[in-house]
Amino acid sequence: MKYLFTSDYCELAHPSVLEAFSAVGNTQFEGYGLDEFSMRAAELVRELTKAPSADVHFISGGTHANLVMISSMLRPHEAVIAPVTGHIFVHEAGAIEATGHKVCTMSGKNGKLNAAEVEAVVKAHCDEHMVKPKLVYISQSTECGTVYNKAELTELSDCCKRNGLYLYMDGARLGMALCSHVCDLTYSDIAGLVDAFYIGGTKNGALFGEAIVICNDALKDDFRFLIKQRGAMLAKGAAIGVQFEALFKDGLYDRLAEHAVSMGRKLAAGIRVEGYRLLHQADTNLVIPVLPTGLADQLREKYGFQDWEALGDQVAIRLVTSWATPERMVDEFLADFRRFGAKEAPERPTMDWGIRG
Amino acid sequence: MKYLFTSDYCELAHPSVLEAFSAVGNTQFEGYGLDEFSMRAAELVRELTKAPSADVHFISGGTHANLVMISSMLRPHEAVIAPVTGHIFVHEAGAIEATGHKVCTMSGKNGKLNAAEVEAVVKAHCDEHMVKPKLVYISQSTECGTVYNKAELTELSDCCKRNGLYLYMDGARLGMALCSHVCDLTYSDIAGLVDAFYIGGTKNGALFGEAIVICNDALKDDFRFLIKQRGAMLAKGAAIGVQFEALFKDGLYDRLAEHAVSMGRKLAAGIRVEGYRLLHQADTNLVIPVLPTGLADQLREKYGFQDWEALGDQVAIRLVTSWATPERMVDEFLADFRRFGAKEAPERPTMDWGIRG
Amino acid sequence: MKYLFTSDYCELAHPSVLEAFSAVGNTQFEGYGLDEFSMRAAELVRELTKAPSADVHFISGGTHANLVMISSMLRPHEAVIAPVTGHIFVHEAGAIEATGHKVCTMSGKNGKLNAAEVEAVVKAHCDEHMVKPKLVYISQSTECGTVYNKAELTELSDCCKRNGLYLYMDGARLGMALCSHVCDLTYSDIAGLVDAFYIGGTKNGALFGEAIVICNDALKDDFRFLIKQRGAMLAKGAAIGVQFEALFKDGLYDRLAEHAVSMGRKLAAGIRVEGYRLLHQADTNLVIPVLPTGLADQLREKYGFQDWEALGDQVAIRLVTSWATPERMVDEFLADFRRFGAKEAPERPTMDWGIRG
Amino acid sequence: MKYLFTSDYCELAHPSVLEAFSAVGNTQFEGYGLDEFSMRAAELVRELTKAPSADVHFISGGTHANLVMISSMLRPHEAVIAPVTGHIFVHEAGAIEATGHKVCTMSGKNGKLNAAEVEAVVKAHCDEHMVKPKLVYISQSTECGTVYNKAELTELSDCCKRNGLYLYMDGARLGMALCSHVCDLTYSDIAGLVDAFYIGGTKNGALFGEAIVICNDALKDDFRFLIKQRGAMLAKGAAIGVQFEALFKDGLYDRLAEHAVSMGRKLAAGIRVEGYRLLHQADTNLVIPVLPTGLADQLREKYGFQDWEALGDQVAIRLVTSWATPERMVDEFLADFRRFGAKEAPERPTMDWGIRG
Repeated sequence: MKYLFTSDYCELAHPSVLEAFSAVGNTQFEGYGLDEFSMRAAELVRELTKAPSADVHFISGGTHANLVMISSMLRPHEAVIAPVTGHIFVHEAGAIEATGHKVCTMSGKNGKLNAAEVEAVVKAHCDEHMVKPKLVYISQSTECGTVYNKAELTELSDCCKRNGLYLYMDGARLGMALCSHVCDLTYSDIAGLVDAFYIGGTKNGALFGEAIVICNDALKDDFRFLIKQRGAMLAKGAAIGVQFEALFKDGLYDRLAEHAVSMGRKLAAGIRVEGYRLLHQADTNLVIPVLPTGLADQLREKYGFQDWEALGDQVAIRLVTSWATPERMVDEFLADFRRFGAKEAPERPTMDWGIRG
Repeated sequence: MKYLFTSDYCELAHPSVLEAFSAVGNTQFEGYGLDEFSMRAAELVRELTKAPSADVHFISGGTHANLVMISSMLRPHEAVIAPVTGHIFVHEAGAIEATGHKVCTMSGKNGKLNAAEVEAVVKAHCDEHMVKPKLVYISQSTECGTVYNKAELTELSDCCKRNGLYLYMDGARLGMALCSHVCDLTYSDIAGLVDAFYIGGTKNGALFGEAIVICNDALKDDFRFLIKQRGAMLAKGAAIGVQFEALFKDGLYDRLAEHAVSMGRKLAAGIRVEGYRLLHQADTNLVIPVLPTGLADQLREKYGFQDWEALGDQVAIRLVTSWATPERMVDEFLADFRRFGAKEAPERPTMDWGIRG
Repeated sequence: MKYLFTSDYCELAHPSVLEAFSAVGNTQFEGYGLDEFSMRAAELVRELTKAPSADVHFISGGTHANLVMISSMLRPHEAVIAPVTGHIFVHEAGAIEATGHKVCTMSGKNGKLNAAEVEAVVKAHCDEHMVKPKLVYISQSTECGTVYNKAELTELSDCCKRNGLYLYMDGARLGMALCSHVCDLTYSDIAGLVDAFYIGGTKNGALFGEAIVICNDALKDDFRFLIKQRGAMLAKGAAIGVQFEALFKDGLYDRLAEHAVSMGRKLAAGIRVEGYRLLHQADTNLVIPVLPTGLADQLREKYGFQDWEALGDQVAIRLVTSWATPERMVDEFLADFRRFGAKEAPERPTMDWGIRG
Repeated sequence: MKYLFTSDYCELAHPSVLEAFSAVGNTQFEGYGLDEFSMRAAELVRELTKAPSADVHFISGGTHANLVMISSMLRPHEAVIAPVTGHIFVHEAGAIEATGHKVCTMSGKNGKLNAAEVEAVVKAHCDEHMVKPKLVYISQSTECGTVYNKAELTELSDCCKRNGLYLYMDGARLGMALCSHVCDLTYSDIAGLVDAFYIGGTKNGALFGEAIVICNDALKDDFRFLIKQRGAMLAKGAAIGVQFEALFKDGLYDRLAEHAVSMGRKLAAGIRVEGYRLLHQADTNLVIPVLPTGLADQLREKYGFQDWEALGDQVAIRLVTSWATPERMVDEFLADFRRFGAKEAPERPTMDWGIRG
């Protein structure tokens, strides 16, 4: 059996989450997310984000959260701006288009959009023969493992306000982003800078579930209709509420993210010290080293991971750590890496991406 | 705190389901439903339904299962035929229409469609100025608590084949239907008579989750694309697979349904013996008595339930039992019912719906 | 060759419309409806409706106008209320549902909705498990040939305002409605009572084309994006502008409607005098007599018309007159009717619908 | 009043088309495209394309034809491959996405896709987390004024067959493409190489209207439902049938296209002889010269045209000729061009695109 660095959804749930289920027993509750567990969890999210008037809704998964939220925000002719690496553009099987909306992309840098790119898209869409960009989609942390800092997010937020655009953040890995050493943002900063975002549970200790946070009052009306219509309203909404209460009531969520990121940093450092470059800066729990194909193939025998990009006789692979990754497996991987690498890569390629700080 | 007969989703999950989660521990698994738990659970479903070539997919909830399956089966101009009480017509916030398809209704009788009604809809849609009915949607057991028997389902199935229609069964409460005393159908019969159906977990012991079973080969292609596109592909698909394995590996699913139905029958019998009529025959765990408003209001102080229909100075209320309903609560309810009823309904209305067998 | 009373779209276009095309010659114009002909035609519509701030857009056909306008007015979970005879519910192949919206129906009376029915729909849709009715769709004149008068339309309009609903009028036959002897409404009254409507050209002298009039400022933004997105923006928008200018510049539109209605009334009177009843009051150019099947079949040999509804051994047929119907064809039809009818219907059925005034 | 080289839809209709309308008089016809004019026009199209079993449908405009046809061919998760310059990607306001489908683009060269690009898109879409490319969209002639020849189209067609893709051709300017000196394709070749295409009337003499030709039997079923549902079925379908009969019965369509192309070539030659380059080879009636901004501005005072692309202190402008462009206006434009150009561009830039043959 291979050890999987494939993603951060390869283990079921943190024991505290499962214990919280058991503690409920046969206590009865209201259906459809109107239960006391969900209410308390929503309140915890409002406290965490210091956004007392935010609306909080719990949804099963990230793609679902994205499509419900985005389709709720747009009129039929309005479109999304996203970086070309954005999850909604590539890896959601056309979910946004299936709700009727085009996703306009810019190439971005290291998975991040900037204000100049957003304005270029807005400027290029000049009349009614084209869609009207209305919402900017970003991921924090990004699909490349990078992170927006406060200056970057503020610049994007200002740009959106100037151009009448909503700013929406996919926070599938928000916990990891916020505990990254390169990130100077808080949950509260984010609630102040975006119109809506979600805090991911699936990739950080929950069995499943994401918490949508709607900050902009104009986007709150009738949102539960949209949740229901898109099939996202669980009869036992409490099943998510219970989990988020467990994750947020005493900081478990952040502790789990910190572990994942610290394992990621150790992995990145161990790879770089052997002289291999990373495709993107490893800010969080995603590490994307560029390796000789032969070395990657040797690692593949023992470990699970995704191929990210073929680069001639090299290949970028994606290694992901999680709240559940044992440090000894990182150590074992690095020992194997050194052993295999020594034979495969006598000449060291130039480093060009590192870990800051 | 009131005791809830509101629905069969008011308790979290059967202890065996939660134990199954704990037993997984930190065992790693493949994402997106390609894990071994889901594989084994799918195999158990194929055994149960004696449909070795059926495709089985696990989805979070019933509305979601309906919209993914139905939108996968239809071209844009094709429509669904459903009884007017069908969940998709009334209680899914326009989910089917949001995927572009009209739902054509017939009034049905006791929540059930028959072949004559289906053919009337087909005949009425005679040209390209109207939608083209292509799929018949039924629920088993129905939203009224009634059940299709083998003769009825066979007649519908034959009618659909004759008219080039797919037959799809919403099995949110399929377990309860099949253990009803009025039902002579097996899982295997159903797999042979419909094109696709789902077996509901949410209302019968699972934390959440439904098992879609696709029997017709023509409907299998690319179904996982549809699951993904509609936001229904959980990263940790294993979270549902684990549950269905626990429910199906030794008959737990049927035992839970039997309990729910037996509690429902006890409730129905206790109400009828006091001389009140039921709006529909109580074949399963839904009991819909017609009560004087005053009596309903007294019960409402102590018990949770839904108002079903106002009928002058009477009201039909919906009482639902579940796998978790303690018999003593049924006894307590009936004791209260007799006590309140004695004062409220000195003249006994005529019975017209009973419990057969 | 049969003479067709099938519909009011069986002749190509009034000569004045074709002359207007010829008069344009090779004069060049701006594309996409921004030409001077469309501008002038829009101004004529604003004058006619005494709605100087209304937005006017020209669209090829009625189904298209309905789907563009309605999908522009609604968020995904919002629904339309229509009478069961409404064109969008029955005869547009699910066009509204294809844009994602449910059409909720009430039976109506003679093709007309009233405020009580609208409020019943609103009241029945009480929570987020159901769609949210947001728009009332009516046709003027109706698909049954009847007409809303000022009191009826005012009552509906007030009801919509009270309930936060938009009121939209399908005016495919608006000209005929307004020149009906039972109608006390003007174009200006309508512009004041509805949020948007269209004035039909196709059925009243134009080659094709309808004029959408948006009265409610909240519905004006970005409407041209919607027109384009739904494929409704003709490159040569001038082709419709030229026609509406010809129809409206000197009252031709109303004169054509008056002819159609006067032919309809003559037909209705001639049928009733022979003792046959009309299914609905013949307010305009649609006449729906109930005839013995044998009589209908004899007429069918020589005339084209639609069967409306089978009624045992009788059948309701729909006869439609148009701007182009020669009076001599009405006379000829009535002569045949008397001749055939004499043999077929010796016992005269009771009249119950007549022509007022 | 400026003379417009803005597009080929700036004049209303060829006199023969208008005469054909007049010739109809008040002759009655069947509605919804089932009339004898449309039948005869469809037969003429089948003869022209030597495709006796093709289905032919008439639609008002190009964007509409594209969205009806494309949405009819695809299941919800299936996507379109188009060049980045494709009309559906940029200039149809998200019409394809509004029907639920993603458009995947490749940059193309001079507005044309090739097989290698198509296969790269197919290869990149490897699993159910992404859309499934199913249809290749191309324009003939392209939005850049270039043309696919037989070898290129055959290569694309073979590639599509190999990869299970439909090939669909937007023929808004098909007439111009086929009479181009660089094109060795016939209507019949095209019918044999693509699954469906449309022949544009709007830009080649018609008042409005396009003829969809479905060659692949698998795509024919129920197409009229789709036409109706998308609002594309004119009540007076005859209004288009009459025009196409006039255009095709004696070769008028090709004569008009030849005139447009010959005017385009004269314009291109006159510009190139002055030493200015064309952005793309001028194969048809679109000429896109790269001019100094000052020269473009002088021309703009007297002529209408579109700015195509800003290129530093130069600008590419799009000049379009049509069936109605008088040769004297081309001469006048070229005289002005020489006059203004002499002052503005003393140093001649290098030519790199020319007119072959």
